[in-house]
Amino acid sequence: MESAIDQHLKCPRTLSRRVPDDYQPPFAMWVGRAGEDLQQVVMAYLGVQYLGEARKPAALAALQRIVASFGLSDGPLHHDLTHHTDDSGHDNLIAVGYWRDPAAYCRWMRSSDVEQWWSADARLHEDLGYFREVVAPRAEQFETLYAFRERLPGVGAVMDASSGEIEEHGYWGSMRDRFPISQNDWMAPDGELRIVSGDPAKGGRVVVAGHDNLTLIRSGQDWAQADAQERSLYLDEILPTLQAGMDFLRDQGAALGCYSNRFVRNIDLQGNPLDTSYNIGHWRSVEKLERWAESHPTHLRIFVTFFRVAAGLRDLRLYHEVSVSDGREQRFEYINCHPRTGMLRDATPSCTPQSGGAR
Amino acid sequence: MESAIDQHLKCPRTLSRRVPDDYQPPFAMWVGRAGEDLQQVVMAYLGVQYLGEARKPAALAALQRIVASFGLSDGPLHHDLTHHTDDSGHDNLIAVGYWRDPAAYCRWMRSSDVEQWWSADARLHEDLGYFREVVAPRAEQFETLYAFRERLPGVGAVMDASSGEIEEHGYWGSMRDRFPISQNDWMAPDGELRIVSGDPAKGGRVVVAGHDNLTLIRSGQDWAQADAQERSLYLDEILPTLQAGMDFLRDQGAALGCYSNRFVRNIDLQGNPLDTSYNIGHWRSVEKLERWAESHPTHLRIFVTFFRVAAGLRDLRLYHEVSVSDGREQRFEYINCHPRTGMLRDATPSCTPQSGGAR
Repeated sequence: MESAIDQHLKCPRTLSRRVPDDYQPPFAMWVGRAGEDLQQVVMAYLGVQYLGEARKPAALAALQRIVASFGLSDGPLHHDLTHHTDDSGHDNLIAVGYWRDPAAYCRWMRSSDVEQWWSADARLHEDLGYFREVVAPRAEQFETLYAFRERLPGVGAVMDASSGEIEEHGYWGSMRDRFPISQNDWMAPDGELRIVSGDPAKGGRVVVAGHDNLTLIRSGQDWAQADAQERSLYLDEILPTLQAGMDFLRDQGAALGCYSNRFVRNIDLQGNPLDTSYNIGHWRSVEKLERWAESHPTHLRIFVTFFRVAAGLRDLRLYHEVSVSDGREQRFEYINCHPRTGMLRDATPSCTPQSGGAR
Repeated sequence: MESAIDQHLKCPRTLSRRVPDDYQPPFAMWVGRAGEDLQQVVMAYLGVQYLGEARKPAALAALQRIVASFGLSDGPLHHDLTHHTDDSGHDNLIAVGYWRDPAAYCRWMRSSDVEQWWSADARLHEDLGYFREVVAPRAEQFETLYAFRERLPGVGAVMDASSGEIEEHGYWGSMRDRFPISQNDWMAPDGELRIVSGDPAKGGRVVVAGHDNLTLIRSGQDWAQADAQERSLYLDEILPTLQAGMDFLRDQGAALGCYSNRFVRNIDLQGNPLDTSYNIGHWRSVEKLERWAESHPTHLRIFVTFFRVAAGLRDLRLYHEVSVSDGREQRFEYINCHPRTGMLRDATPSCTPQSGGAR
């Protein structure tokens, strides 16, 4: 048994863990490990938005173009593709790329192919929406949790290995306790979402500035290799409740501090659904996420089911990754997206001009 | 809004609260307040055990005798009476007395009437069992929580007043955070339950020694003044799940660190049931209690229901009090009780003779 906080990220505590040193979790879970050279990662959610099936081929072509750009020098080390329909009835395709070197991400993002495509006036006249939602948490600002040890998805794919069994899981508050920065930082949110450029109601280009400790959770499910019994466990027992919880957050999350919630299905490059999915949740703070997770009936029911079956899971792969980041290490940009997209819904006009994010 | 930890019990922290300073609970709750003169309380659960209805009159008479002894000099400031049938099919009557001055309790317990009655050989030959389960937590070693402000039951009845709305509730871990001692103490259990005198299998007199930070929870319900709607909320919605959870702890709690669990119904001095009840749970530690409370389906369901209705409760009175105490401030004594009674079930024979508790 080992701490979720890697040795080189340990530091003298000013804040205590929630559980005593001899706490024993009720089943095994693992986290991703990376060497000290991993100092900061980049998670870039690059989206294409369209309304109506007729626009799907154009949207898929745009997604394919983004994926092709990943092959350029300094592209992400790992990516995956998803589809979801949002609360306004728009479809969205997202390619999420992961870098373990923010300098490489920066070179890629500023490369002429990527930069010129995004900046081109043509983007404004395609009957498609585009967005970039990028956060760059430092090593002490994210945590992971896997019910398995092989082929880690998401940020785990750019880390080096799986840990041994970790201590900090199986209790409310363990998510916070797995963040290295929680040893001496409350991860308090600083500021609000602000529109720093453009007007969501008018479409066109809009830039939103985030704030310190804005929280991003990716919480995933992979039933591709599961046998009939585990598929049924997921599809019949877990999914309906999960769907209800995620719909609730999508539709009523604003009052709770959930800026955006997208339950997405993985797809291949041709848009065919795969048997993996995840939820992408943006929150005002870890605390707001904690409060929801530990009090909402849907999440409590999922938690109970997971507790019951966790020790016996074989090929149903459940996991999450949660990060906070500095406001200056966030980038939220939109082109012709409807005004409830991503951070647009909860962002308020800013009175002071500011740069719209990092890098 | 104020802290559950009273001003005079605040001290510099070495352990942090689970939630940030600006945490806002989702509805109002209150705690008991007492002046600095309240330094330690005594909670004495004095029981009579009988098997079969034929013994009920004798048992009731014994209970009445105990209650009469409360009227002696230095008796408890407050008491109530309960009945429950245990997992072995025995009936049990308990009079619980509360003192806010342990010296008074001590004088009462050592008074000749009380002492001689308990010590008399006649107690061994009555076809009744007796027990005394007494803990004496200091002011920093207990916490309370009430969904109401008037006529506080239990330990609240020997305190001075109700607080204003308190901050530390509505999240997992708030129980711990309400304990003043949690500011710099994990409340770790020290040792095991040990039989220090007698043999439970043989009946007769048995003394069990507790251990530091053994945890006692009294968690109560009072629907006596509730209108039809709130009675139905309690009796139809909450009670079935509560009963299932309490039965689970009674029957399968040992593996989880629950030494004893008794869901008791208040009675009057003639044994007639009242519309109030509570659960008496003895645990190895606050941590074990936390782990159960925040993971067991029955408790999570009650929690969800309570969250939903809490803000609107009028006359359905829900509350709890939780204490830890030093091993030397505990007393567990049994006469002719069956071997699954109270602390007897989980106590193991001791190799070293020791005093069997405090005072």
